[in-house]
Amino acid sequence: MKELSLLSEIFNQQKNFPNHITIPPGDDMGAFTLGNNQDDQVLITVDQIIQDVHFTLENTCLSRIGNKAMNRNLSDVAAMATTPVAAVTSICLPKSFTQEQSLKLNQGLITAGNKFNCPLIGGDVSVYDGKLIISVTVISKPFPNKKPIKRSGAKKGDLICVTGTLGGSIIQHQGFAKHLDFTPRIQIAKALTQIPNLKLNSMIDLSDGLATDIKHLAQGMQGSQHKTKLTPQINLDKLPLSTAANIAAKTSKKSPQHHALTDGEDYELCFTISPEHQEFLPNQINDIPITIIGKMLPYIPNQNLQLIDKNGTIHPSDLAGWEHHS
Amino acid sequence: MKELSLLSEIFNQQKNFPNHITIPPGDDMGAFTLGNNQDDQVLITVDQIIQDVHFTLENTCLSRIGNKAMNRNLSDVAAMATTPVAAVTSICLPKSFTQEQSLKLNQGLITAGNKFNCPLIGGDVSVYDGKLIISVTVISKPFPNKKPIKRSGAKKGDLICVTGTLGGSIIQHQGFAKHLDFTPRIQIAKALTQIPNLKLNSMIDLSDGLATDIKHLAQGMQGSQHKTKLTPQINLDKLPLSTAANIAAKTSKKSPQHHALTDGEDYELCFTISPEHQEFLPNQINDIPITIIGKMLPYIPNQNLQLIDKNGTIHPSDLAGWEHHS
Repeated sequence: MKELSLLSEIFNQQKNFPNHITIPPGDDMGAFTLGNNQDDQVLITVDQIIQDVHFTLENTCLSRIGNKAMNRNLSDVAAMATTPVAAVTSICLPKSFTQEQSLKLNQGLITAGNKFNCPLIGGDVSVYDGKLIISVTVISKPFPNKKPIKRSGAKKGDLICVTGTLGGSIIQHQGFAKHLDFTPRIQIAKALTQIPNLKLNSMIDLSDGLATDIKHLAQGMQGSQHKTKLTPQINLDKLPLSTAANIAAKTSKKSPQHHALTDGEDYELCFTISPEHQEFLPNQINDIPITIIGKMLPYIPNQNLQLIDKNGTIHPSDLAGWEHHS
Repeated sequence: MKELSLLSEIFNQQKNFPNHITIPPGDDMGAFTLGNNQDDQVLITVDQIIQDVHFTLENTCLSRIGNKAMNRNLSDVAAMATTPVAAVTSICLPKSFTQEQSLKLNQGLITAGNKFNCPLIGGDVSVYDGKLIISVTVISKPFPNKKPIKRSGAKKGDLICVTGTLGGSIIQHQGFAKHLDFTPRIQIAKALTQIPNLKLNSMIDLSDGLATDIKHLAQGMQGSQHKTKLTPQINLDKLPLSTAANIAAKTSKKSPQHHALTDGEDYELCFTISPEHQEFLPNQINDIPITIIGKMLPYIPNQNLQLIDKNGTIHPSDLAGWEHHS
């Protein structure tokens, strides 16, 4: 079973939602309203990490694992251009865990949440004969007088932009491995929404790899109400390469660009804007680069992704990002 | 590690919460506000079930397992006297699972939620080499013009009441096993809050067994702000015994009352009211009995629970309910 196609089937099990559901499954977060005001939205996301799938216990401090479990959700909060409110967690602890280990793990969750004013206000803990699993749910709300930014708003001609640098998140370099130690881009999302005249049409966070995630902006995920199909075109020489992508390329014999396109867990933001808004887009925010890497073309049949190399040659691509399957 | 004491330690890791957190960890649900109005509360709970701990895959339809995973959370929603708004889930699927099995499980979640206008609006699914684990998070809000009812409001002299019948939830009888097939008591909670002049001072749902859960009403869980200590006194001959408690007693050689006190997963409501309000308490709601089973005494040192038998003899008790530990 492939997880993404299964998720898509699961989302399709429900077609009709009550009126208070404003963003159904298929985006980075779901959303609902509490009263009659449709502008008063509350958003929710859930994400789990599993020992030996998303992290290993060997050589990894438990507080970093707690940090990752919380921050994956906060990355979704950033992707919707919202601000976190509170979190809850459910944890499956291996029988071999000590109370000290459990508290250290939980402290990682708490510390990561508190950095973004997102306290942990509830939890469920089970001790069992299995691997360490941490599921975190985060609630968020839009920034004042702003609306959430969905995956589904991209238009043809839109410029495709990313924050930070991409690739090699699994590489440990100078004590830092991005898949564990990344900073969720909430401050950048906030800053972007506050720039006068700049409008983000669509946004997602990069968790499964740019080549996979960009397709969600181009197609809307199945289950989403928005179905406009576009073909994203990415300039290979515009990709902002991380140091880790270059390190990874040395052993993989693949290009750093390949790593930037297909490696998972970048936890950067990928968003689209109208070309008329390009002049309002800064080159960086808080020292984090903002890079235009391509544009959305009208849909070209059977081309879900198009790459342009430095010579201007166009390559239809069936590159896919990182996905667990079995 | 004992799960309850670990949870209590975990809650104690955080002492100070931002102003928007109105119910910190330690109750059936946490709560927060979104704006400046402290009366506009949103509540959240998370609960997970694990294969071979909370259910077995043998002889159990997957939709019943999905049902249980959702309804445990909806029981918390009832325990706070609130109404559900939306849910999300994270599921760890064993590699051996087929897509058909996964969809059947998810349909159980969806169907259970929809019965209470609680649509599933997001999820995370991982396929891995381990047991089936389902974590569900539910958001709720208070009934119109009502406040949530906490665990911590019990006063000395309060009468202790329970809904339904207790004990033997694990027993399968006429195709029904309460631990899987229970109905969360949301309608009863709603009806109770709408009775003029009746005020519920405290409430909890019975998941770990009456003898354990009643202590949360008597003491407030650690981490809660409310610390009044009371000694609950329960009349053994007032306990509403389920058919399953009587069946269980036949093989366990224990009394049905013992099962009613210590068996977990009743998913009934236990609440306290002032004795002056007794006249407003109905004997039943929607054919579900409401029974006064005892009262809250001023705290008697070293007596966390007191039982009275049919002869009026008082027995200090150290009975504990059902708790996983290892």
